[in-house]
Amino acid sequence: MAENVIHPLFDPCDRGKTASPAELAAIFRPSAIAVVGASGRPGSVGQSVFSNILYGGFAGTIYPVNLTAHSINGVRAYRSLAEIPDPVDLAVLIVPAAATPAMAREAAAKGVKGLIVISAGFRETGPAGAEIERELQTVCHEHGMRLIGPNCLGVINTDPEVRLNASFARRRALPGHIAFISQSGALCTAVLDFAAKRNMGFSKFISVGNKADVGELALIRYLHEDPQTRVIMMYVEELRHGFEFIETVREITGGDRPTPILAIKSGRTAAGAKAASSHTGSLAGSEEVYNALFQQAGIFRVQTIEELFDYAIAFGNQPLPRGNRIAIVTNAGGPGIMATDVTIQTGLRLAPFEETTTAALRSHLPAAANIANPVDVIGDARMDRYRDALEAVLADGNVDGVIFILTPQSMTEIEATARVIPDLARQSGKPVIASFMGLMDVSPGVEILEANRIPHYHFPETAARAMAALYQYSRWITREHPEAGPLPVDRPRVRRVIETALAAGRHYLGEAEGNEILAAYGFPVLPARLATSAAEAAAAVAALGTCAFKIVSPQIVHKTEAGGVRTGIATPEEAAATYEEMVARVRANRPDAAITGVYAQQMARSGMEVILGINRDKVFGPLLMFGLGGIFVEVLKDVSFRLAPIRRNGARFLVDSIKARPMLTGARGLPPRDVDELERCLLRLSALAVDHPEIAELDINPLFVHEAGAGCSVADCRLLLDPGRACPKPPD
Amino acid sequence: MAENVIHPLFDPCDRGKTASPAELAAIFRPSAIAVVGASGRPGSVGQSVFSNILYGGFAGTIYPVNLTAHSINGVRAYRSLAEIPDPVDLAVLIVPAAATPAMAREAAAKGVKGLIVISAGFRETGPAGAEIERELQTVCHEHGMRLIGPNCLGVINTDPEVRLNASFARRRALPGHIAFISQSGALCTAVLDFAAKRNMGFSKFISVGNKADVGELALIRYLHEDPQTRVIMMYVEELRHGFEFIETVREITGGDRPTPILAIKSGRTAAGAKAASSHTGSLAGSEEVYNALFQQAGIFRVQTIEELFDYAIAFGNQPLPRGNRIAIVTNAGGPGIMATDVTIQTGLRLAPFEETTTAALRSHLPAAANIANPVDVIGDARMDRYRDALEAVLADGNVDGVIFILTPQSMTEIEATARVIPDLARQSGKPVIASFMGLMDVSPGVEILEANRIPHYHFPETAARAMAALYQYSRWITREHPEAGPLPVDRPRVRRVIETALAAGRHYLGEAEGNEILAAYGFPVLPARLATSAAEAAAAVAALGTCAFKIVSPQIVHKTEAGGVRTGIATPEEAAATYEEMVARVRANRPDAAITGVYAQQMARSGMEVILGINRDKVFGPLLMFGLGGIFVEVLKDVSFRLAPIRRNGARFLVDSIKARPMLTGARGLPPRDVDELERCLLRLSALAVDHPEIAELDINPLFVHEAGAGCSVADCRLLLDPGRACPKPPD
Repeated sequence: MAENVIHPLFDPCDRGKTASPAELAAIFRPSAIAVVGASGRPGSVGQSVFSNILYGGFAGTIYPVNLTAHSINGVRAYRSLAEIPDPVDLAVLIVPAAATPAMAREAAAKGVKGLIVISAGFRETGPAGAEIERELQTVCHEHGMRLIGPNCLGVINTDPEVRLNASFARRRALPGHIAFISQSGALCTAVLDFAAKRNMGFSKFISVGNKADVGELALIRYLHEDPQTRVIMMYVEELRHGFEFIETVREITGGDRPTPILAIKSGRTAAGAKAASSHTGSLAGSEEVYNALFQQAGIFRVQTIEELFDYAIAFGNQPLPRGNRIAIVTNAGGPGIMATDVTIQTGLRLAPFEETTTAALRSHLPAAANIANPVDVIGDARMDRYRDALEAVLADGNVDGVIFILTPQSMTEIEATARVIPDLARQSGKPVIASFMGLMDVSPGVEILEANRIPHYHFPETAARAMAALYQYSRWITREHPEAGPLPVDRPRVRRVIETALAAGRHYLGEAEGNEILAAYGFPVLPARLATSAAEAAAAVAALGTCAFKIVSPQIVHKTEAGGVRTGIATPEEAAATYEEMVARVRANRPDAAITGVYAQQMARSGMEVILGINRDKVFGPLLMFGLGGIFVEVLKDVSFRLAPIRRNGARFLVDSIKARPMLTGARGLPPRDVDELERCLLRLSALAVDHPEIAELDINPLFVHEAGAGCSVADCRLLLDPGRACPKPPD
Repeated sequence: MAENVIHPLFDPCDRGKTASPAELAAIFRPSAIAVVGASGRPGSVGQSVFSNILYGGFAGTIYPVNLTAHSINGVRAYRSLAEIPDPVDLAVLIVPAAATPAMAREAAAKGVKGLIVISAGFRETGPAGAEIERELQTVCHEHGMRLIGPNCLGVINTDPEVRLNASFARRRALPGHIAFISQSGALCTAVLDFAAKRNMGFSKFISVGNKADVGELALIRYLHEDPQTRVIMMYVEELRHGFEFIETVREITGGDRPTPILAIKSGRTAAGAKAASSHTGSLAGSEEVYNALFQQAGIFRVQTIEELFDYAIAFGNQPLPRGNRIAIVTNAGGPGIMATDVTIQTGLRLAPFEETTTAALRSHLPAAANIANPVDVIGDARMDRYRDALEAVLADGNVDGVIFILTPQSMTEIEATARVIPDLARQSGKPVIASFMGLMDVSPGVEILEANRIPHYHFPETAARAMAALYQYSRWITREHPEAGPLPVDRPRVRRVIETALAAGRHYLGEAEGNEILAAYGFPVLPARLATSAAEAAAAVAALGTCAFKIVSPQIVHKTEAGGVRTGIATPEEAAATYEEMVARVRANRPDAAITGVYAQQMARSGMEVILGINRDKVFGPLLMFGLGGIFVEVLKDVSFRLAPIRRNGARFLVDSIKARPMLTGARGLPPRDVDELERCLLRLSALAVDHPEIAELDINPLFVHEAGAGCSVADCRLLLDPGRACPKPPD
C-alpha cells in the first residue's frame, strides 16, 4: 500500500466513468455475495472482510469461497465460485494479485456483475503489478463486470435494506447521510475513527483504490441518485476526467436537486515544474488546473481533513442560508468577538436587527446584556435567556442564520440549553450552528446537539467558517446563467491554416497565420498585409494608415532580437525606407533565415494591455488563462484560469478573479474598459481551444482593451501546434 | 461580564506596565492571603474562590473575611482585614464594585502589597462603573499596591512551592510550563477545559480583566523570569503600550534566553474606518498596527484559539529545529502526502537523506516501502519498523526535525510505537511532532505521547504546521542584526520649521517646508528655489537646469487641479513665460488664493516610484508605511508597515514584504535599484517620526529610487501637523 508510488495511467479515457447507477447496484445493493479468500484465520484480511459482512447484518446471502475450509464463522464455504449453488451478483476478492484475473473470469462465468478487489500488489507496486491490473481490467471490460479497486479497503452501504460492510475497516460506519469516496485506504480507517467519536453517520463509504474501472465520476452520479445521501465527501489524489467531469458534476452540485460535494485534493506540491514556452504554460501548474476544475464543477474544495469533517457536518444537517446576514448569540464577549471576526472575514455579515427583535431582546434580557448583534446574554444566563434570545433572532426577517456560542460558566445550564436549540432551529427553516466551548464540561450538551442534527464545533471560529461554507454554496446554486449570445466562427478556415502549417512541418505560428485563425473566430484583429517589396510596404501604409512592421521568416521566432520590428510607420515614404532597412538588418543579423517579407499591420489605438492564453493539460484538456499584461503577469502572477469550454459566467469569472480588476473598471481615474467585448474574446478563445485540439499553446499578448463600447484589438499573438494531441473533442 | 462594551481608557500611559517582578511576587507567591467576600454559600463566587485556594493545597495561610460567618469551610473567619492577627500580602476581593475602593484602603492599611479584584461592575458596565474603577486604581497607586483585575476570573500559580488557585474556575490547571494571560474570563474557563482533555499543564494562569493596573507587559516580564514558564500564550483584545512594549518584548522573545510568546488578537474587524487625508492613513487600519507590533516584538500571532493550543504544545515541549529540512515517517501514503503539502507550503522542505540513512532504511524496511522522504513504512508495519526508520532519519545530519504519522491499521502496534518515540527524540536533540490519526483507536498511544512531551495532533497537516511554527520562531531568535550606520540629523532646524508653521496656524505643509524638513534629516531632496517673479523663475532654471514649477499658496493644497503644476521647463525663457502663465491661470481659477510665488525644483532623474509615509496611532505612536507608487498602492494595496522606531532589519522588512519587491531588484529586465539608500531613507523617516510627535501624517510620494548606487530623490511630499499630539517621546 505504498500509495505515493504512482505509475502512469493506462486508460485515461477509462470506461469506468460511464458505469451507470443500475450497474453499480450490483456492488452497492447485491442480493448475494461471494467472498473469495474468506478466511477463519484471526487477524487476516479475509477473516476481517468476511466477518464485517456477516456480523454487519447484511440483508442478503453470503457465500465464503475457500479452497480448504468446510465452513467459516459457521457459514458453509465453497471451494470455488462455480460450486456455489445459487446466483451471485457481487464477488469480493481477497486473493493474491496474480490470481485475480483468473478469478474474475470465473466470476464472469458465474454471472457475477460486480467485483470489489481488496487485494494489493497491482499498479502501486510497479510495472509487473500494472500488467496484472491491466489484465484484470480487460477481463471486467470484456464481461461487462464493474470493478471497485483493486488495492482498496472496500465498500460500506448503511442503507437499512442492505446493511453491507464489505471492507476490512476496524470500525463500523454509523448510518447517516454523508457519502465518502477516498483514494486512500489508510485515510478511510482514520476517518471512521473520527466519525465514530463525532457521531457522524455515513450513507455509503467507498475506498476506490487504484480506480481500474469505477472512478469518482460514476460514483458521484450514483450517489446523487441515492436517497440516503445528502452530501458527498471526497479525498482525491488525482482525477482522470476533464470537461465531462465538469459538465456532469455541475448539474449535480448546482441543478434542481443539488447534492453538495466537498473535496480535499492532496499532492499539491508534488507536481514538478513543467517546461513550457508560453506565458500560460509557465503559470499553469496542476494546482491551478484542479482549482479550476473544482470551481467549475461546483465542488467545495477544502484544505485539510479536519475541514472536510467540519463542513460535511454542516452540509449534511442544516438548510442553506438565503443570504449572508448572521446573528450571533453568546454568553461571553471574547468568543463572540472571535466569531464576529471570522464572520466578517469570510464574506458573511452581522444582521441588523428589526425593531421588534430589539424590543423582544430588551424585554427578555437583563440590562447588562448586549442586545445588539452579537447578542450577549452574559455569563450568568440560564437556559431561558438563551432560548428567548434564539427565538427572537430566528424570527427576524433580516437574519439568515444563527451562530450559537456557549461557554461553561457556573450558572450555565449546558444540557437544558442544548435541548432547546434543535426545535427552534427546525421551525425557523434557518441554519443554526453551535459552539459549546471546551471538551469535558460541555460534552453532555454536545451529545444532545449532535443527536439532534445541530452541527457543533469546539471553537466559535470554526462554527463561523462552517456557516460561511453553507452561504458560499447557496450562492453557487442560486447563481444566474447569463446568455453568451451568438459568436459565429469559421472552423474550416482555421483547419486549413493549421493543416497547411503542419504539412510544412511548422509548429510555431506567428502573427500572420495567428491573426488569420483569430479573425476566423471573430477576434478583433487589426487590418494587415504581407508586403514583399518596398513598394508593397508603401502601398500597405497608404491603405491602412500608421502601421507596425514585423519581419516574416519561418526561421525567426524572436523578431525583436533579430531587428525585425518597427512601429509607428506613418507615411508611404517612411514605409519604403523602413522595408529596405529592416530586410537588410535582419539579413545581416540572421544570414540563415529566409525572409518572406514584412507584415504591415495597422497600429492599435491605446488600451489596457491584457493577456489571453491557452495551455493544454494532458488529462483535463484545454486550460484558459487571463491576466493583465506586463508586471501583473510577470511579477505579481495575477492571473486566473478556467478549463474550456466556458460559458458567459466562466468568462466573467476569469475577468473578475484577478486582483488588478479595478484597472479595467475605472481605478485611479482611468476610463472603464470594454469588459463586455473582453468577455466575448474569452468565449471565442474557449471555442478555439475546444474546436482545434492541435493548438497546444496560444498567447494573445497583448490584447488592447479600449474604453467601454470601443472594443478590443489583438496586438500580437503566438501559437504552438502539436499534431500529436489526441484528446477527444467535447460535444458542441 | 459584557466584555464587548468597551469604554475609553483613562490611563493610556498606565503605570501597571512598570510593575516589577518583585512587586508581582505579592500576587503570585504570597505567604498569606485574605479572601474578602469569602462565603460558605454553595454556588457563590466567594465560596468558589475560597475553596479553590483552600483545597488547591495553597502552601501559605488563608484568612477568610466575612461580616457574619465565624468560619468558612472550617477555617476561622474575620470580620475585617484589620481583625486578622497576622501580616497579609495578598487580598482577593469578591465584594460589590462600589465597596472595592474602601476595601483597598483597608488593605493598604493592613500592609497588603497585592490585590486581585474578581468583582465585576466597573468600566465594562458604563461611566459609573468606570468612575469606581478609577477610584480603585488611584487607591492602589497611592499606596503602592499592585492590582490584577477588576472583572477577572483570578490567578493560578501551579508552582509546587506555592500551589495557588485564586480563581473561580470550575477546573484546576495541571502543573506544566505554559503561562496563559487572557483578557477574557469566559475564555479562561473554556481553555482550562480543553487543556484538561489534552493533558496540557500550566505554570501560571492569569485572567487580567479590565487591566486597571497590571497589564500584559509587566506579566510578560515576570513570566520571562519565572523558572516554571517555557512559553507564554495570550488572548488579547487590546493592548495599551507601543514602542516600550516592542523594545521590552523583543528582548524576551529574541534575547539570550528566549521565551516564545503566542498571541491571538480578536476584534480584528471591529475597528471602524478611519478618516484620514494621507495615503498612509487610509491604508493603516488597526489590524496593520497590531501585525506590526507583534512582528516587531517577536510575538507569534495565531488566528484561532485552536492554533494557540496547537502551537503552545509544540513550543512548550520540543526544541527548535536548526533548519527547515524535515523528515516525514508514515505508514500510509495519503496522510504522508497531506503532510508534505503543508510542509512545503509553510516554508519547510523535505530533507534529502544522506547515503547512510538510505542504506539503513533499505536494510530495515521491506522492498515495498518507500525509503525516500516521506518515508513510508507501509500499512503492515509493527513497532520495530517505525523505530528503525525514526532512528535512521534522526541520525541524519540533513534532518532538522521529524513529523511522525501513524494510521491505525490492523497490524499497527499503537502503544508500543508511541513508547519508542520519546527517548529517540530526546537523544537526538531534534524536534519530533506526531500525528496518530483518529480519536478512539489511537487514544492509548496519544496518552503515552502526551505524558512524554511529544506534541500530538489528530491531523498530519496540523503537525506540519506546528513544526513550521517552531522553525519560524527559530529564525527570529537567530536573525542577524545589521548595523544601520550613522545618519546625521538636524533636529533644531526641523523644530524651527514646525514651530513657525504652527505659530502661523498652518497645519498642512507643502513641498517648500516639507523639503526643508526632509533635507534636515538627510533625505535626498532635489535643489529648489522659491521664485516670486518671472525673472527669479528664469534665474532658477539657469541655475538648476530643467525644473518642475509648482504654485505656492497657503490656500491651495491640490495644486494640479488649480492649474499650478508644470514640468520639464528647460530654458530661462520658457521659465519666465511659464511663471506668468501659471500665476495668471491660478489667479483665474482660485481668486480666493494669495499667491506667494512658484516653487522651482530640479527635475528628478527617472527612477522607480515608491511611497514612504508616517501615520500616528493614538496608542502605539508613529506607524511607518512603504509601498510602490501608483497602482501598487492605490489598486493592489501592496504596502508594508512597522511601528517606529525601526532598525536596519525593520527597514529591510518594509522593503522585502511587499509583493512587488522584484520591481526594485530587477524584474522584467529592469535594472536593480538602490535599495540600500532606500533603506536609509526609511531609517530617516523613522527618526523623523520619533523625534517630532507633531508630525501627524507625512507622505513622500513619490520617492524615485534610482539604479543601484545612484541613490534616491524626493519628488514630492506633504505633511500634516497636529500640535495636540501629546504622545510621550521614546528615549533616544
